[in-house]
This record gives sequence, structure tokens and C-alpha cells, in this order.
Amino acid sequence: MTNTVQPGAVVDPARVRHPYFRDLVTDAASAVARIRHGDTVAISGFASAGTPKAFAPALADRIRRVRADGGELSVNLLTGASVASEAESLLAEVDGVALRMPYQSEPTARGKINDGRMDYVDIHLSHVAQQVWEGNYGKVDVAVVEVAAITEDGKLIPSMSVGNNKTWLEVADAVILEVNSWVPLEVEGMHDVYYGTALPPDRRPIMMTGPADRIGQPHLEVDPAKVVAVVPTNEQDSETAVTVPDAISQAIAGHVVEFFRHEVECGRMPADGLLPLQAGIGNVANAVLAGLADGPFTNLTCYSEVIQDSMLELIRRGTVTHASATSLALSRAGLAELVDNIDLYREHVTLRPQEISNHPEIVRRLGIVGMNGMLEADIYGNVNSTHIGGTRIMNGIGGSGDFTRNGYVSMFLSPSTARGGAVSSIVPMVPHVDHTEHDVQVIVTEHGLADLRGLSPRKRARVIVDRCADPAFRPLLHDYLDRATARPNAGNTPHILEEALSFHIRLAATGSMLE
Amino acid sequence: MTNTVQPGAVVDPARVRHPYFRDLVTDAASAVARIRHGDTVAISGFASAGTPKAFAPALADRIRRVRADGGELSVNLLTGASVASEAESLLAEVDGVALRMPYQSEPTARGKINDGRMDYVDIHLSHVAQQVWEGNYGKVDVAVVEVAAITEDGKLIPSMSVGNNKTWLEVADAVILEVNSWVPLEVEGMHDVYYGTALPPDRRPIMMTGPADRIGQPHLEVDPAKVVAVVPTNEQDSETAVTVPDAISQAIAGHVVEFFRHEVECGRMPADGLLPLQAGIGNVANAVLAGLADGPFTNLTCYSEVIQDSMLELIRRGTVTHASATSLALSRAGLAELVDNIDLYREHVTLRPQEISNHPEIVRRLGIVGMNGMLEADIYGNVNSTHIGGTRIMNGIGGSGDFTRNGYVSMFLSPSTARGGAVSSIVPMVPHVDHTEHDVQVIVTEHGLADLRGLSPRKRARVIVDRCADPAFRPLLHDYLDRATARPNAGNTPHILEEALSFHIRLAATGSMLE
Repeated sequence: MTNTVQPGAVVDPARVRHPYFRDLVTDAASAVARIRHGDTVAISGFASAGTPKAFAPALADRIRRVRADGGELSVNLLTGASVASEAESLLAEVDGVALRMPYQSEPTARGKINDGRMDYVDIHLSHVAQQVWEGNYGKVDVAVVEVAAITEDGKLIPSMSVGNNKTWLEVADAVILEVNSWVPLEVEGMHDVYYGTALPPDRRPIMMTGPADRIGQPHLEVDPAKVVAVVPTNEQDSETAVTVPDAISQAIAGHVVEFFRHEVECGRMPADGLLPLQAGIGNVANAVLAGLADGPFTNLTCYSEVIQDSMLELIRRGTVTHASATSLALSRAGLAELVDNIDLYREHVTLRPQEISNHPEIVRRLGIVGMNGMLEADIYGNVNSTHIGGTRIMNGIGGSGDFTRNGYVSMFLSPSTARGGAVSSIVPMVPHVDHTEHDVQVIVTEHGLADLRGLSPRKRARVIVDRCADPAFRPLLHDYLDRATARPNAGNTPHILEEALSFHIRLAATGSMLE
Repeated sequence: MTNTVQPGAVVDPARVRHPYFRDLVTDAASAVARIRHGDTVAISGFASAGTPKAFAPALADRIRRVRADGGELSVNLLTGASVASEAESLLAEVDGVALRMPYQSEPTARGKINDGRMDYVDIHLSHVAQQVWEGNYGKVDVAVVEVAAITEDGKLIPSMSVGNNKTWLEVADAVILEVNSWVPLEVEGMHDVYYGTALPPDRRPIMMTGPADRIGQPHLEVDPAKVVAVVPTNEQDSETAVTVPDAISQAIAGHVVEFFRHEVECGRMPADGLLPLQAGIGNVANAVLAGLADGPFTNLTCYSEVIQDSMLELIRRGTVTHASATSLALSRAGLAELVDNIDLYREHVTLRPQEISNHPEIVRRLGIVGMNGMLEADIYGNVNSTHIGGTRIMNGIGGSGDFTRNGYVSMFLSPSTARGGAVSSIVPMVPHVDHTEHDVQVIVTEHGLADLRGLSPRKRARVIVDRCADPAFRPLLHDYLDRATARPNAGNTPHILEEALSFHIRLAATGSMLE
């Protein structure tokens, strides 16, 4: 080990309670000195919460120095999902990441990926732990995990996300712990870390039947012999900025609330509590949740990946009785609200490993209502969530597939246009498919809601165009559909292959999908 | 009730043991007289096994007579998956089916669907029971279910498939039972009908941990008050023809066996028993299973939808200790083998509802190795399983998505070319996506195996083209990929939208994908 351990460095004994770990206290620069070129490094962090604060700046510095000395240093970087933008961009700027998995949402990293300078593997978030255990990403050399504290008996109190931390701590050869004093110690008990997963053929049923069920333990475990450094930090999580819902988001939210009302009337959802809701990250999802605050529904629950600002409000009002997630995606104000009222939220929020928050078994059993954003849908209900123009990655599929495929109702929400009306989010054929026609049940834009359940492709097309497309694009879409359907041997899913991607080709050529 | 019940009609008392049901014995013509225009009719049958034998001919006759009288009669037809071709074609020929769900594989029905004269809803087989319970297909008016016998206490001994029969019997307003004397009574005990499913929020864990586990009961239940007719039949199941594995299928099988060997070496699968195998219907899958007979693997299990001929051979040799499925897809010879040795196969085969054979919870827990056929894959690993040229449906997605998304390893197998070499099964962009890049882990053709796990799209493309594409198509594919990747702002998944579908456009214009 080459790093300079500094025994007795400043550390709060309430944060590092076990003397063994106090002896490992060092600074981040020393801790990252052990990272070698080609290492696979798995770090904590899911959305804006729980990213190690000192690691990325220290590693980026080290990469610069190694390069200045004529050396090379880059790593394969595994995370929970996206991590704090600052960390992502620092490492991308120095070309420090050779391979990135499973999700990112930061412009510098995105640019490197789209330039072919960073390999990106875009897999379902519920698959990550399994695939790493399976060995698809080789050996994990170093795990870097932020925690709130290390207890008297060497257990770890997680910080503001769980993500894949359980797995990282188990599979890594060496572990660096960042102990962040900003995280309130009262967060202890908000987490439920399930240690019952296994690789097949040794898997057993996961005995959870509701979003509030606790099936695990409040602490993460780590083999002390693997811990090579304990790095004290004191820095708040970065924020997930939210905007006040605009008219479009509010219209979308209105359609969703009306749909829920209809489902209750039809007896498909219980009037009291509906079914556990999942909402992707973003302003539209945030607006939908906010819309529920004024709705008629009570005793709601949430089984999702992240807790957003509007969820805190729903919990505070008592509309939501329990929210299960793997992380927080809060604004500055939301973070302050959470920290200031941690006792309230600890009671009504459970943070779980993403293996469990997104688990096919649980998502199917609980009957999740999935609400995710999209870039675009085609007239037959195939959804593109990831690739602008079919080629340039935006963020990644994240957990949307986990909830869509295995949930009870799968909804995709989007404004009907983008770029000032030049881009339609309803197109003849999407140039990249993340969610197939077999999985997409409901599409919602500000214009309306298309309920595709039980409809053949030709009928879906009429409903999607008439209910969801912006009126400016409807004539073009109708014209395409009419001509495709009128062709001899038109098929179950009529298309004109020569024109199927014409909206996207026109956009690239003229800056607009309109003719 | 308008049908003429004929009490005392010829019926074997060993087949209809309860007098209540004996009083309901009638012929099929009388039984179908109650079916009205617009009814939703849910019938038994999954692949070639368990389709009611008398129903379709009787209904087709009645439709002809109603039309001759100036009336109209067509139904919405729900099944397990495909049903016996004879039944499918009889009803399609008379335009008797307005809406078809969830799968078909018969030329006449396919033609009607592609002409827009039959609505077809192509959903995952694991979703069918849930969605019908949810009410997405409205009320089910009549269920027509083939059984082997009705017991002394009014329970039903299932015939050669289970499919959605449990659900059909539960949800239908009226039930017609066909009691088929061809089915050996010794089939009793081969089925495991699980009655523990529910709609959310009332779902509980399904306590199964291995393919041989029995968690249900051997009989189906029916409310006697709903049974309107009992129709005796004596007719064997139709067959699923298989061909002797050709050189291409054997080459594919060889790559798969070699892959398993490699996975065992890497510690990803147990040497003894591997992991439960799932194989789609068809000659390639049949050849892969046959290839396992000569392989080094023992104590294999299968957790799949159907039992094919080669599986019987594996059971007979002791290579496979247990095969779980929802149906049989056997040739004439296979059917005879099964019936002649029913005691052996009853011990080593379990037939379950398709809700359980394809259940996300079980598929994930058992760690299924999914092996499914495909029409084509694109260079980035998106798979088209259903739509020829992107428009004309072939069969449907069936259960391939259930096993692919939630399984442990998802493999797609296909010859590298079709139509005498004019069609490549590796193309720049598939014009219809059933399985996304996020789900497809391994692609196999006779030329080789592409292991896509952990690879970025650009790296996947090289592996797929170099390992799987036919050499005649490799220069065209390399040229496309090279030019797409060389473009400015090429993106994570380089494409040239103007040319992405050029293989298919050329095929339509010239009869070949080759230039």
C-alpha cells in the first residue's frame, strides 16, 4: 500500500466509533494513490445523493499528475446510477473513465461517450448487482463508499443512498470509506439493507409484500480486512434541481390523476391507496406527484428509485404513508427539509439496495404503477428513452425497464414537442427502442392520454396520434399512417420503410421535424 | 340456454365421474349455439397440445350458417399461446375472429392479421392472466377447456397443456368442457396448478425454488353452476413437426454447448446441473437440446414453456432430471412416446399454468438460461422476433420476453441467413424491436457466438458482425458501421438513418439484401 496513512487525523469519534477504523483515517489523496491504471472502481452514489465527495477530485488530480509524468491512468467506473455531476464531470474531463456502467446524466461524460472516447454499458438497474456478481465486468478492484458513520461494532450507517453499496462492499478487493459528517446521524434506521440475495441456484423468495416492509438490517457490513482507508468529509449532497410545474407538466399530471380516478372506478385499483407508485426523475414526474397532493387519493405509497421534493410534501401532508426508494433526488430546499425533519422522514421513508427497489420479483408482486419520462414514442407505442436521433445517448435506460416490464401499469409521460415545437415526441418510427410495444401501456402528453391496453397496432396508432401528438404534427402522422396502411400487404404494423425515419432525417437536415 | 342437451349421450363414466356433469353432456354443435356475436371466448391450448378438438369445427360451421341466414357472428379469441393449426385456420377461414390474443403461428390467421382483418394483440405470455383479470379485454363470456376427465368430486384433470386454463375457468361467465378420451388417465398428477396468484395489493411470495417443486394441486377447479356443456371427444393432439437437426442447427448447438462449458469454467454456472434451461419452440432449439445429450452435463433441469421431442430423449437418458413447462410441443412420434411411457414422464415432467411457467418472480429466482429464436438482430444487439420487414407479423413474441428480461443469461439463436442466402439475420438496424440491446446478452449463428455482456454498443457491433454474420454480408455491414462511426457526432450507437433500413428496402425491391 503506497498511501500515507495518517493515524489520529481529525475525525469525529461519533462518526468513526471503532478504533480499528480510526487507525485507517487518511486523506483522499493518499487513499486514491492505490488506484492503478485499468482498475475497476465501484463507487457509491445514486442520482444526486451519496456520491463520495473527496474521491473524484482526488482521483482527477492524481490522473493529471500521472499524465504529467508520462504515465497513464484511467479506470472502469461502476456506480448505482448517475452520481453527483461534479464527480462525473471531473473524471470525464481528464479522460479518467474508460468504461462507465450503468447510468450517467452529465454533459461532459455524455460527450465523451458520444465521441466514442468512453465506453458506456447501458443496462437495467436491477441487473447491475447480478451481473457484477456473475463476473461480467471482471474483478472489482476498489470500492469507494460514502457512509454516515462507522458503528462501535464495525457496521456502516449508510448515507443518503444505498444503490449498489452492499454489492460493492462485498465484491471489491479493497474498500475506501468516506465518512461524511454532513449526513445527520439520525438517518440511522431509514435504510433497510437486505442480505438475502444470492446467485442461482441458491436464490430464495424475498418475503416482502408492501412498500413499508422491512426485510433487512439498518446497516451495511464490510470485512474490516479489506478497508484500506477511511476518509473524513463534511460536504452536503449535490442537488437535483426542480422547477415549479409549468402548464404542460400540470396538464400531464391532470391526465394521470384522471386516469387513476378511472382505474378506481373500473375496479382496477383500490380507491384507498391505489397501488404503489413509481415515478422517474424529472420535472414531469415531480409535477405528477405534486398533482396527487390536490387529488382525492389517500394512503398512497411509493415504491420507486428516488424520493423527489414533491414526495416530501406528500409525506408531510399525510397523502403518502410510505415511500420506498434507493436514493434521494432533492433540491437544496428539499435536502434542508429532509435534514431538518429527519425524524419524520425516517419513519415514512425506506431506502433499500437498488437490487431490491427495482427487483422483478417485488415490482411484479406489489403491482407497481410505473410513470417514466421518454424522449419519444412512435405511433405503435415503442418508446425511445435514451438515444437522441437514434445515435447520441442522453442518459440511459436506468430503472425504467425494471418497472415497465414487470409492473402492473406502465405509463410514459412527455411534453408533445421539444425545441420550441420543432421536434415531435410522437414519430412514425423511433430510431432506438428501449421499451417495446409489448410493454408500453399508456402514453401521456399535455394533449391527452392514450390507453393502449388491449389494442392492436393499427388501433394503437390512431389513439396515440389523436390523443397525444401535437396538433401541428397530426396531419403528417395521419398522412404517413394512411399511406402505410393503404399499401398492399401492409401488415400488422404498417410502415413505409423509406419514410419511417423521415422525421429524424428532416430534423437533422433542417432543424425541424415539420415539413 | 339454447343448446340441446342430450342427457345420457355416450360418455365414458371413467371420464365424467360426477353425475351432475353427466347431465350436461351434449355435442359441440349444441354447445356452441350459445355463443353470440361479439362474445369473448377463451379456449384452452398452448402450442399443439390441449386445444379443444370439437369447438373450432362446430363454431366455424355455426358461423357459416349464421352468415348464410344474413346474420353476423365473430368472437374475440383468447388462448394460451398458439393452438392447434386446424382450429386456428378453421376459424380464420370464416373470418370468425375479430380479435386474437396473445399468440398465433398459423398461416391463415397470420394472413388475416397482416391484411388488417383480424386485430392481434401481441403481449408477453406472463402478462395474459394478469391483464385479463385486470379487465383489459372486457368480460370473458365463454371458456372452452379440454380436460382428461372430471373427477368424482367435480375437479378437472387437465389434458396435455395448462396454459391459461385456470384463469379462463375463473373469469368466464359460462364454461364448456371438452372431455377427451384420447388423453391417458395416467396423466393425472403431471400437472401442478397454483391457486395462489392474486391481483395487487394482495399478492404473496410464490414459494418455489426449483423446477421440480410442486406448489399447487393436480386438478383444475370449476364452479359447476357455470358449466353449460360437457362435450365428449376422442382425438389426439395435433403435432409440432420437427426435422432432424441439420448442419446449421448442429453448429449452433455446438456453440451453445461450448458456451456452457466456458460458463462452468468461469464459475458462472454450476458444473453439476448448470442452471434451468428454457428453449423456445423450433428446430434450432430442438437441436440445441439434442446437442446436450452428447455433452458433458448431467442433472440438467428445464424451466420452459414447452416440452419438445428432444427433451423426452434427455429425460429418458437421465440427462435431464426434471422438466417444467406449461405444455407439450411434440411430433406424432413424441406424442406416442409420451403416452406409451406416461408413468416415466409424469415423474419427470411438471405442467404448470403459464402464469407460473413464465412468471418474472420465478424466472429471476431460478436463474433461467433463455434460448430463443429470432428473425434477425441488428449490429447493436436489438432483436426482431416478430415482424418480417418490420410490418408483417410472423407469430408473436410469446414468452421470449419473459425469459429474456428476467433470466440469468439471455441467448438468441438463428441461422445467419434465410431464403437461400438472400436474407441476412444480422442487419444494420432492425425495423421492429422485440428485445432491446439492454436485454440481449448472447447471439448465436452457425458461424459463431457473440458474447455481448459488458460491451458498449460500438464493441458489440464488431463482435456481432465478425462472429455471427454470414461472410457474404460482413463487408456490407463493416462498411455501414465504419461510415456510421466516422461521421462527426457519431454518438454512442452510430447509425446513418438514411441507410439504416437499406437492407430491408433492398430486399423488398430486389428480393435480396445483397447489393
